[in-house]
Amino acid sequence: MQAQWKDLRINAGRFLDDFETLSTIGKSGDTGVNRPALSQAHLEARAWLREKIIQAGLEFHQDGAGNHSAKLNCGPEGAPSLLMGSHLDSVPDGGRFDGALGVLIGLEVLRTVQEAGIHMPYNLEVYDFTDEEGSLVSFLGSFAFAGLLSPGDLENPRGDPQALATGLARAGLNPKGIFTAQRDPRTLAGYLELHVEQGPELEKNRLPIGIVTQIAGIAFYRLSFLGRADHAGSIATVNRRDAALGASDFILALRNLLLEQFPECFANVGDAQFIPGAFNVVPKNVTLALEFRAATLERFEQLKTAVLQLAKHSAERYQLGLEVEFIGKRDPVTTDTRVRSAIQDAAEQLGLHTMSLSTHVGHDAQAVANLCPIGMIFVPSVGGISHSPKEMTNWDDCVNGANVMLETVCRLAFLL
Amino acid sequence: MQAQWKDLRINAGRFLDDFETLSTIGKSGDTGVNRPALSQAHLEARAWLREKIIQAGLEFHQDGAGNHSAKLNCGPEGAPSLLMGSHLDSVPDGGRFDGALGVLIGLEVLRTVQEAGIHMPYNLEVYDFTDEEGSLVSFLGSFAFAGLLSPGDLENPRGDPQALATGLARAGLNPKGIFTAQRDPRTLAGYLELHVEQGPELEKNRLPIGIVTQIAGIAFYRLSFLGRADHAGSIATVNRRDAALGASDFILALRNLLLEQFPECFANVGDAQFIPGAFNVVPKNVTLALEFRAATLERFEQLKTAVLQLAKHSAERYQLGLEVEFIGKRDPVTTDTRVRSAIQDAAEQLGLHTMSLSTHVGHDAQAVANLCPIGMIFVPSVGGISHSPKEMTNWDDCVNGANVMLETVCRLAFLL
Repeated sequence: MQAQWKDLRINAGRFLDDFETLSTIGKSGDTGVNRPALSQAHLEARAWLREKIIQAGLEFHQDGAGNHSAKLNCGPEGAPSLLMGSHLDSVPDGGRFDGALGVLIGLEVLRTVQEAGIHMPYNLEVYDFTDEEGSLVSFLGSFAFAGLLSPGDLENPRGDPQALATGLARAGLNPKGIFTAQRDPRTLAGYLELHVEQGPELEKNRLPIGIVTQIAGIAFYRLSFLGRADHAGSIATVNRRDAALGASDFILALRNLLLEQFPECFANVGDAQFIPGAFNVVPKNVTLALEFRAATLERFEQLKTAVLQLAKHSAERYQLGLEVEFIGKRDPVTTDTRVRSAIQDAAEQLGLHTMSLSTHVGHDAQAVANLCPIGMIFVPSVGGISHSPKEMTNWDDCVNGANVMLETVCRLAFLL
Repeated sequence: MQAQWKDLRINAGRFLDDFETLSTIGKSGDTGVNRPALSQAHLEARAWLREKIIQAGLEFHQDGAGNHSAKLNCGPEGAPSLLMGSHLDSVPDGGRFDGALGVLIGLEVLRTVQEAGIHMPYNLEVYDFTDEEGSLVSFLGSFAFAGLLSPGDLENPRGDPQALATGLARAGLNPKGIFTAQRDPRTLAGYLELHVEQGPELEKNRLPIGIVTQIAGIAFYRLSFLGRADHAGSIATVNRRDAALGASDFILALRNLLLEQFPECFANVGDAQFIPGAFNVVPKNVTLALEFRAATLERFEQLKTAVLQLAKHSAERYQLGLEVEFIGKRDPVTTDTRVRSAIQDAAEQLGLHTMSLSTHVGHDAQAVANLCPIGMIFVPSVGGISHSPKEMTNWDDCVNGANVMLETVCRLAFLL
């Protein structure tokens, strides 16, 4: 079947024009972008994408979760779709590539297939998922799409509830409508996502293409160490129940746990709230924002048990109470072996060497895996840096990634 | 000379009426008050005091730092004043006794001496100092009064700069005017402050009166541990420079330092700011709000050296930078021995047993010590509790304290 798309390549000039224009929206400093989910800059980027989709003569659609998508009807009527996707939102003061690259490559693939007039057994769609980076809820769009969102996620969001309400209103969305975004899996053939690696492996191995085997599971908790507020000038050290001691003990013990027993896993305490938070009051309550990640379900469960046990011990060591608040999780996901083979073959066809790797960074693909087979293509991150204006992927690697995506989509369309 | 004031006692009924009325201003719950400096409730309490002063036919005065005072001209024209004082502001959700008791006792002493028509070698004044508890600057009023305030204290206040600006405007004060509050020491004979102990010693020893020998020095710092922000799912544990590790190490090491080398001193990390403060970003910067206290200048200096050395070690242990920001300090103060003797004699005269003690809690007296001899009288705190609605001093102890103050003032007036 390859005859149909032999030597087909994306339009690198058009792709570069789009990338450069998009990088100016919410621009921060010389090389960064600041497009937190549903901020003005993010909505501007979404409006720009909508224009591009309509200009290209593709079907534009927005679902109840605010996910924007383009559809190319290149398959028989009523055929399911092969999807590509990623996200246009960024972390505060993030980079230009994270998410945006995957969306633009999807758009470019649709336009290239459209122009070549290729008929496929499936239709093609590209998605821009809402709030991947989690300024508001985290994976709001792809979780709603995959039927994984619960009302509790909206009632107790990871970000500021007021920012969520403001963002939804700004985008003309409402909480109830979000749940209508759930997609019927019978309409889906598979999902492909291209993303920057956000790690150093491809660069270290001088390889242009990574094939993701596993996306790690990730869990979020708030741990509150509960002590007693005392006047810091009248209660002796030995008589205090200082919540900061348990929290500090946990932060240090967590690092040792990872180093000694879970060297391939990740954990982070990214924030802390001291209550009441005054110079002269012993903290009665310290709440830590904790996340941890493991590539397989077995290690994910082992890590969870060990981490929560550790927190309990740290609290007990300083005679503190402990309150464990589960915020959310995404289970580890294994990519589809047929999809991996297709990426491998596509890269080979283009003369590009590949390596397999697992990722501990969350991706929309992880949510969509609840509905259909998925695969992920990584391109190199210079210095492994991401979530920073210093984030960088060489343009050749971007173009190679786009062509591997194009080739993979065409192969998969005749495989799945 | 004692004939003049023999058997003179304060008016306990009037004193109780005043205390009960004042306790309703900014009332919080059944037993607390919420009167942070220059809040509406605090201004209301100040307005009430002003009325009381004027009603009593005493001279009312407000200086540029907003300190309210009453003067009884019971001495020769141009004579210096013997001062009493404390504060009407409270910590957020604090107690009724802390500060307020000292101001009301001062007022009651003035009224009692006035009614008895006693002539003294000095005039008497009572001060209500602004912002003792430090919602805004900390000791704003008494520091300005004592010439210890620097413009930097206002530019980089301990509390929220916006709250300071709002509070000053609300009270009709301005930053420049604050410095005019500095008092000429030649107009002062001495200063006496009665305060609740905020500790358990008097209650433990079943004694009604404490004579303060030392007021501990206190220093405030912000310590910033400086690392690198990394994506918490892509940078391995061993390769991170996680600012939370240094901060946690310091918090635990500080406790050990106090227990092992400074058991009679106090230290507290009351707040922490994690930057950027997201679940999935390794903290690049953790800033701790630190204070420590020691009763003598020698120990104060030793403690300072040891604490800052500790922070340096904690930062180095985790390959972090350290930024030490000095916020402010109050040096340790020794009370005047003649004043101590006068309190001792006064209590004896009233048949009340006393004990000497040092305090690690800051008091306006500490600032005023820059200008004249000072002394402090403590009355018992039930359970040692303060800065809490549960703060409690039995009414008999309050009345005894007021009479010891009256007797001390009269003795001192003929001694100093």
